Amino acid sequence: MNLVTLADIEQARERLRGLARTTPLLPFELSELPDEHVYLKPESLQPIGSFKIRGAGNRLVALLPAERERGVLAYSSGNHAQGVAYAARQLGLRATIVMPTTAPQVKIAATRALGAEVVLYDPAHEKREAVAARLLAAAPAPPVLVPPFDDAYVIAGQGTVGLEIVEALPTVELVLAPVGGGGLLGGMAAALKLLKPSVKVIGVEPELAADAQASYRSGQVVEWAAADTGRTLADGVRTLSVSELTLAHLRQYADDIVTVSEAELRAAARRLLLEARLVIEPTAALPLAALLRHRASLPPSQHTVLVLTGGNADPATLVELLHGEG
Amino acid sequence: MNLVTLADIEQARERLRGLARTTPLLPFELSELPDEHVYLKPESLQPIGSFKIRGAGNRLVALLPAERERGVLAYSSGNHAQGVAYAARQLGLRATIVMPTTAPQVKIAATRALGAEVVLYDPAHEKREAVAARLLAAAPAPPVLVPPFDDAYVIAGQGTVGLEIVEALPTVELVLAPVGGGGLLGGMAAALKLLKPSVKVIGVEPELAADAQASYRSGQVVEWAAADTGRTLADGVRTLSVSELTLAHLRQYADDIVTVSEAELRAAARRLLLEARLVIEPTAALPLAALLRHRASLPPSQHTVLVLTGGNADPATLVELLHGEG
Repeated sequence: MNLVTLADIEQARERLRGLARTTPLLPFELSELPDEHVYLKPESLQPIGSFKIRGAGNRLVALLPAERERGVLAYSSGNHAQGVAYAARQLGLRATIVMPTTAPQVKIAATRALGAEVVLYDPAHEKREAVAARLLAAAPAPPVLVPPFDDAYVIAGQGTVGLEIVEALPTVELVLAPVGGGGLLGGMAAALKLLKPSVKVIGVEPELAADAQASYRSGQVVEWAAADTGRTLADGVRTLSVSELTLAHLRQYADDIVTVSEAELRAAARRLLLEARLVIEPTAALPLAALLRHRASLPPSQHTVLVLTGGNADPATLVELLHGEG
Repeated sequence: MNLVTLADIEQARERLRGLARTTPLLPFELSELPDEHVYLKPESLQPIGSFKIRGAGNRLVALLPAERERGVLAYSSGNHAQGVAYAARQLGLRATIVMPTTAPQVKIAATRALGAEVVLYDPAHEKREAVAARLLAAAPAPPVLVPPFDDAYVIAGQGTVGLEIVEALPTVELVLAPVGGGGLLGGMAAALKLLKPSVKVIGVEPELAADAQASYRSGQVVEWAAADTGRTLADGVRTLSVSELTLAHLRQYADDIVTVSEAELRAAARRLLLEARLVIEPTAALPLAALLRHRASLPPSQHTVLVLTGGNADPATLVELLHGEG
């Protein structure tokens, strides 16, 4: 299986100029870890509020002229949808997005506001891949499917996060990032390890949706049921499984995948809101939760980066986090 | 009266290295203004969550050795207190902070957590200047008073915001910033006008605390009663009046001061939370509220910067803003 190369990721960065932002690296003081320099990489400050613009943007810019005319189609629980819709609008392409009726309203509304056609489905009765396949079969000139993670262009696009981290902080020793489908963790770990092999890269998942950890440790793609992964507040990583392609990247380049509880996730999210003063979605708090819970067993590091994947939380979720409930 | 010079402000920047951050300039798309490039300058991302670290830091680094031994004293409704306390801790100085019992609990707690001694007073019965004077008179080796705005070092320190804006965005045409005591607006306007005379600089106040506008337009320091300025949600600009020194800077370098209603302020704050994904205190939303309300009467601009002064909001205030109440 072909893994993405450093050249692929550097090319992705060129394609993304003017579409995605180079997000800043923000120092974050943690009283528990006075001797560790911790930095936040707030992908919540991207135009669509998440890193997904990177992968989607790289895929769309790389389309052939004939493909551009057919437009694009994506299925997503939220942020990938907005990434595809935003990139399509910027590039003047038609976009159709398949979203579950259970997606946060703020994400559905934002996707429509970007000019995309949204097709809703009930995840209790259909799988999104099946809905997408049905739409593709029905179209006279079928749009190009842009997968949320199982695609080399998408993986390379997410990998640009890793390039930016090494450039902004050459002394980086440890990077923690959420893992759902494995596109971000796989691409980013590739970039980091190919630029600086000594960097440790750790994925973080909720205990309630630990399919990626099971896949990483067994070497086989393990699928969890939607009824199980749907229990976590971290809606960005409710993906049922990684793919063969992302797993190959994780096995090659990531050092481990660890898990945190829902209570740890909520406490970390609240701290990011009030201490880092960033509006984040719960998924983005996974790395901080892991650093606080697992510090002793994680690789030692003086310069640690936590990737905050997105900031598209419903107001009700933010209120719940601010109240410290749950 | 001597106004701060560009050299003063450039010197302040040198003093602030390692103490205050160069905050990023974040593009912010506003559907109402599709042809105007709007950028946010999030001072909420400073270590203490506000621009006040700049002025306080500049004053403290510039202390003489004999002054350093006496420690520092400040009175503040919140963010200045944290600026002084944080800078004092970083520089190894003792700090005493006089705060009103009405200050947000999060600010009082944060000031104490930074190692400062907090002296509380009831603003209904005493003025903070009187409390500070009483403490100074009682001390055997009186600490150095660090005023929140009526000081050339403080004004020059806040002015570094203006340097950073011109450097990050040489095409800037219009800058909007909150105005309370006038230290930020005065220093920043000086830096901006001395570097690029064509830039327009506008201060923004709540209608309920429009003392700076009255002073600016009359040329005389106009004082409002605490019972009046206390009505606005924007606790960062409840200052009763500007000072002679800040007014001289405003008259020389600022182009106007405009006002917004509480409803406009709340709506703008909610949008910054959900669309810019930044946790801000209500005061920081004044510039966005003004841009949305007054666009037609403000100077034309293709490249506009809104200064977000701080991000230290009580969770209860954030919940209120997210609910869209008021």
